[in-house]
Amino acid sequence: MNLPQKVSIVEVGPRDGFQNEKQFIPADQKIKIINALSRTGLKNIQATSFVHLKAVPQLADAEEVMSRMDRIPGISYRILAPNMKGVQRAIPFKPDKINLMMSVSESHNRANGNRSIEESLSDFEKIVPMIRDAGITPVGGMACTFGCPFEGKISIQQIERVVKRYIAIGIRAITLSDTIGSANPKQVYEIAAYLKEHYPEIEWPMHFHNTRDLALANILAAMQAGITEFDSAVGGLGGCPYAPNASGNIATEDLVNMMSESGIETGVDLDSVLQVAEMLKQVVLHPLHSSLMMAGKPWRLQKAPAQQAKIG
Amino acid sequence: MNLPQKVSIVEVGPRDGFQNEKQFIPADQKIKIINALSRTGLKNIQATSFVHLKAVPQLADAEEVMSRMDRIPGISYRILAPNMKGVQRAIPFKPDKINLMMSVSESHNRANGNRSIEESLSDFEKIVPMIRDAGITPVGGMACTFGCPFEGKISIQQIERVVKRYIAIGIRAITLSDTIGSANPKQVYEIAAYLKEHYPEIEWPMHFHNTRDLALANILAAMQAGITEFDSAVGGLGGCPYAPNASGNIATEDLVNMMSESGIETGVDLDSVLQVAEMLKQVVLHPLHSSLMMAGKPWRLQKAPAQQAKIG
Repeated sequence: MNLPQKVSIVEVGPRDGFQNEKQFIPADQKIKIINALSRTGLKNIQATSFVHLKAVPQLADAEEVMSRMDRIPGISYRILAPNMKGVQRAIPFKPDKINLMMSVSESHNRANGNRSIEESLSDFEKIVPMIRDAGITPVGGMACTFGCPFEGKISIQQIERVVKRYIAIGIRAITLSDTIGSANPKQVYEIAAYLKEHYPEIEWPMHFHNTRDLALANILAAMQAGITEFDSAVGGLGGCPYAPNASGNIATEDLVNMMSESGIETGVDLDSVLQVAEMLKQVVLHPLHSSLMMAGKPWRLQKAPAQQAKIG
Repeated sequence: MNLPQKVSIVEVGPRDGFQNEKQFIPADQKIKIINALSRTGLKNIQATSFVHLKAVPQLADAEEVMSRMDRIPGISYRILAPNMKGVQRAIPFKPDKINLMMSVSESHNRANGNRSIEESLSDFEKIVPMIRDAGITPVGGMACTFGCPFEGKISIQQIERVVKRYIAIGIRAITLSDTIGSANPKQVYEIAAYLKEHYPEIEWPMHFHNTRDLALANILAAMQAGITEFDSAVGGLGGCPYAPNASGNIATEDLVNMMSESGIETGVDLDSVLQVAEMLKQVVLHPLHSSLMMAGKPWRLQKAPAQQAKIG
């Protein structure tokens, strides 16, 4: 089993997590969480999304969050922007990276962005030079890479159609998202291996939701295909609009635990992440999907009992 | 990534799951669940444990369950027995297999069985011939293979010490258990690959708890080392006495979903297992740890909305 020595983790809780919260979280609280995340050893934090405030009222405070949060040297703070307008709003706040977002499924792109794939890509042709001119690194995004709620599985031809356009406009990193949590390890390995082989100059960060408990298995499969950057959200924040009770992004603490237990370096301090996850209990008023918060870290040894107990 | 074409699933909910339930479940309800499991395509069901009724009052009805449940031809019904007394009680009910149980950790074996590893193994030397003489297949068990709540990690030398004794008394299948959910994919792969290489004549079924969300990743790693038999519990029943809020065994429905999505045959009908999981809501009065029960199966396509929605 071929595993990397180290991986990068991109914390997306403040964006993909908070975006999914029904109750508005005041900017002060968002900033407090981001600032705490900046003290965990995480080197990549997606702080917010510059999206139309009617589409995501929860993130209408993107400007305030970006201008007031701490920016610790050495940490890359990124934002998400779905279109020209979002990028124009974001640039003055000098994020280190801007994640573009579109869906490889025509119907999902239309449902989410109200435009065709072609319209998104044409827009990106104008946007990417603007981002570069501002000294910011653009990152491509492909929602529904591993499945669409309306169209089901997406063909590799359709994935490549978008990949080629991204590459043509100068994108060198493309995040592949399992938007509805339908990916499986075999599929992840095959798509990752194919793209790594055919586009060796491109980086393929991956974004897995833990909807069907497969995020860590999918990440294990992706690593074996050479993928070394993964999104996660502290406390397992986030969810799926197509499966309302399902869990959200893979929890950062659960991902860090798998990595450190498997001897793979992340640079992230697990105890510090767990402290931020505990802080979330005051910020979001629903149960969190985090196994480490329930079970605690492994290897906290207990004293053996004197009396007989049951067989397990 | 080297995956098998098919795997066997051993349903342990009626044993490892029910054993962990505080509120007594009447034999009628246990039998109803076992009978429903017998109609799911599962070919291996661990029905109960013949353990001292003071140690596990919940399974004091082992005789009643074994004598009154349906025995469908083609399904292997097994029970667990920790010692001579349990085996003697079980044999008249003609289980197809008997799982022996001991811990590779001296302190855990003492805590659970009130005796030393040497005493367990000496006992098994007398028990195994009895089991064989009754026409029943004995299966070895090694709790804490991947970690002990009192001693931490267990050396491969210690694991082999027990393995060699099992082999010497004629055991040809040994279940390796992640009793406290501390295993990680790298460790699982390495231990599995080592044992497969050094003891090629032995089968190594594996038993993972999903305590830290790693069960499916561990199973993915184990399959790559050639392991093809896994325990699971419908509805994610079970738990961990050392982490009271943690999740239990990997849910059978989540395991079947990973396998079928990855093109690995199990013979199990996912819809039928999900129906049994739903029945459990009337039997155990606490939330179940099952992602498929929350999220549903993948690929139930929805109608694309007409209006604009948010970017995800």
